[in-house]
Order: sequence, then structure tokens, then C-alpha cells
Amino acid sequence: MLTLHHLEYSQSFRILWLLEELGEPYELKLYNRDPETNLAPSDYKALSPLGTAPVVTIGTLVLAESNAIIDYVLDSHPDSTLAPDPGDKDRARHLFWYHAAPGSFMPLQSIAMVLGLLETRAPWPISSLLKSVFGQVRKMFLNPRNEALLNLMEEDLGKQAFFGGDYLTGADITLVYPMYAARDKGVFDRGYPNIHAWFERIEARSAFKSARAKDDRERITFRFTN
Amino acid sequence: MLTLHHLEYSQSFRILWLLEELGEPYELKLYNRDPETNLAPSDYKALSPLGTAPVVTIGTLVLAESNAIIDYVLDSHPDSTLAPDPGDKDRARHLFWYHAAPGSFMPLQSIAMVLGLLETRAPWPISSLLKSVFGQVRKMFLNPRNEALLNLMEEDLGKQAFFGGDYLTGADITLVYPMYAARDKGVFDRGYPNIHAWFERIEARSAFKSARAKDDRERITFRFTN
Repeated sequence: MLTLHHLEYSQSFRILWLLEELGEPYELKLYNRDPETNLAPSDYKALSPLGTAPVVTIGTLVLAESNAIIDYVLDSHPDSTLAPDPGDKDRARHLFWYHAAPGSFMPLQSIAMVLGLLETRAPWPISSLLKSVFGQVRKMFLNPRNEALLNLMEEDLGKQAFFGGDYLTGADITLVYPMYAARDKGVFDRGYPNIHAWFERIEARSAFKSARAKDDRERITFRFTN
Repeated sequence: MLTLHHLEYSQSFRILWLLEELGEPYELKLYNRDPETNLAPSDYKALSPLGTAPVVTIGTLVLAESNAIIDYVLDSHPDSTLAPDPGDKDRARHLFWYHAAPGSFMPLQSIAMVLGLLETRAPWPISSLLKSVFGQVRKMFLNPRNEALLNLMEEDLGKQAFFGGDYLTGADITLVYPMYAARDKGVFDRGYPNIHAWFERIEARSAFKSARAKDDRERITFRFTN
């Protein structure tokens, strides 16, 4: 039996959704963030190899990293459409988006988060100076890369219903976290009709709804000003 | 026939090494960075979906993201030990390190790179102020996370020869880039005997040597002061 150690407002929501999609029994342990620091509590950090969420335990095995967990869990479901088989027409598309989540989308968000935190927490006039310097990073580096990524998403979701192709796959599940983080920041407020349709499509799924109900939080992603 | 579009001093070295390990025929196209901006040349950016390296083409398929390419190429080599099968005793270990490379190690390096660039390129006294602010980010966030990661690497490489377990796997291949980036920055200068043994072990492989020869650069990774 697998135990999902789910930290509220964290990337472990992916695994909660995955397990609901698979409909297999699992044990769910919920952990709240420290109300002072917003970080994972000490028992969570002690459990997770790198102190990060998600983490699952299966007997004596302790496994972290979202996509490692998704791959491992799907090993036991070889017939699931959540991972198109080698040779499937959607295989390459699925793999690209599955790995673009940690490989391209998340790092851009992490860099933006660190810069944003520094800006907002520094006292004036340092904050003002940081804003000016970071504005250049956004203009030269972060914004063009983000824009290329979002445009490709919009294009691909205009061709097929899910990131992974015709069916929901691990690509959609791993992208759910950065997609909601982006939506919460207003990134999709103008345009992106195909991306909006994707959000509607996943939110209509019963497994997504039950994952949200078990999570029982007002939103999926973390933000520093809760 | 697969064509690897290899950008010098970039993450596409992984795929060069992968293909040499597999010993299958492929076409290699080399691209130099723009000597002014250090970025990929415009023909590379036009080819790659997000403008990033690596990218491979197979007929009309254009595929980016290191781990997507590794997975896709290994689909055609089901008997390769580069990916332990589901149920293999090294499966979970392999998956953890395979996904920890883009999921944990690379983002820490990317954030550190952006901060380092801002520090060194800003004029004094802004540079001095940034150093002080970023020092706090390093102390509170980057260093503890990096240290946890490096300690776990050292521990795991003391138990088995490769990140992926008893055999070289995609985990070692995808980690090669951030591992050399860290080594070049002096991260392993003191201690880490098991990590040093891993470097020796991979450098002794004939496929690694031929990848280095085809790359034909004085080092593997990119740095801004070439």
C-alpha cells in the first residue's frame, strides 16, 4: 500500500490527482505548512530525501521527485493511458511536455519567485533598486522564454485536448502545478483560449474533483502571501 | 536516422554521450555559440521548440528536453541497461536521480547562475548591495538545499557505482551536465570521495571518451567567462 505524504499548497497535489485518476487504494497523510515560515513542517522534511514535496512511502521505500513518483506508480499500471506506450502516435508529444514541466516551466517560475520575494521583502530604497535590476532579467531572459513556452502550449492545445495528446497523461498531471501557479498570477488573464479550455477540461474530471476535495484547500498552489 | 543538433558547452552533451553509449548510427550537427552574446545561434533557436538545447530531429519529428529525448531514444533499445525495467531492484533509485536532475539540481544551479550574473555585471556600488542581499538567499535557501543534495549523492554513490544503481543509466547521463558545472565551480574541491570516484568511472568509459572527442571542447559546461 502506498502512502502519499501530501503537503498543503505544494507540488504533491500532482500525486493526489494521479492516485485519484488511477482509482487505486492509498493512504493519505496531510501536512500543514508552518504558519510562521510557510515551509514544510520538520517531520515532513525529515521524511523527504531532499526535504521537498511530494514524497511517497511504499513499505520501506521512500520516493521523492514528482515525475519519479509518477513513473514508478505507472509501472504498476501498464495498461493505463496516462503514459502512451513506445510507438504510440502521442509518445513524443507526451514525453516533451512531461519533461518540459520540470525542465523548462518550473525553473522559470522558481527564478521569478526568488526575484519577486527579494523585491517585495527588501526595505526601500533597496527594493526599488532591485526592481529596476530584476526588470532587466525579466525583459531579457524570463519573459521571452515564458512567452515561447506559453505560445507553444496554446498551439499544441489547439491541436489535441491534452498536453499528452488525445488522452490525459502524466504530462497534464505534472504540469498542473505550474499551470495553476501561472493562472493564479494572472498570466492567462488575456487570451489563451485553448489553455482556458484545458483548465475547464481537467476541472470537469471526477478524479480531479475528488483530489481537490481531499486536498480541501481554497487553491492548489503556494504563494507567500497566503 | 536521428540527427543530434549539438550546441557547444550545453546540455546537449548528454545526448551525445547517450548516443555513443548506444553505439547506434546518428548524424551530428555542431553549432557554436554566438561569440558576442554566448547564446545559441539563430538557426538553432529557430529549430528548437523553446530555443533551448538539446534538440534532435528524426524525420519530421523535432524533439527537445533532455529527458524526453533520452526516454524516446531508449524506447528503441528495450534491452538496454540504461533504463532499469519496472520491477528491477534499481528502478526507484534510477527514477529518483533521473528526475532529480531537472527537478532539483538544475533549478538550484539556474537560480545561482542568475544571481551570480547580476552580481558580477552590476556596476559598483550596486554590485556590492546585490552581493549582500544574494548572500542571504544563498545562506537561507540555496546552500542548505544544495548541501542536502550533494550529501545524498555522496551517500548513494558509496552504496552503488552509479546514480542509477549497479549500471550506468539515464540518471548518470542527465546528471552529467550539472555535475560538471558544479565541479567546474569547485563544489567538490574538498571531500566527496565517492563523487570523485564516479567522475573517474564515467571518464574511463570509451563511449564517454568518444563523446568528448566529438564534442572537441576544453570542457563540457557553459560558463559566462569563457
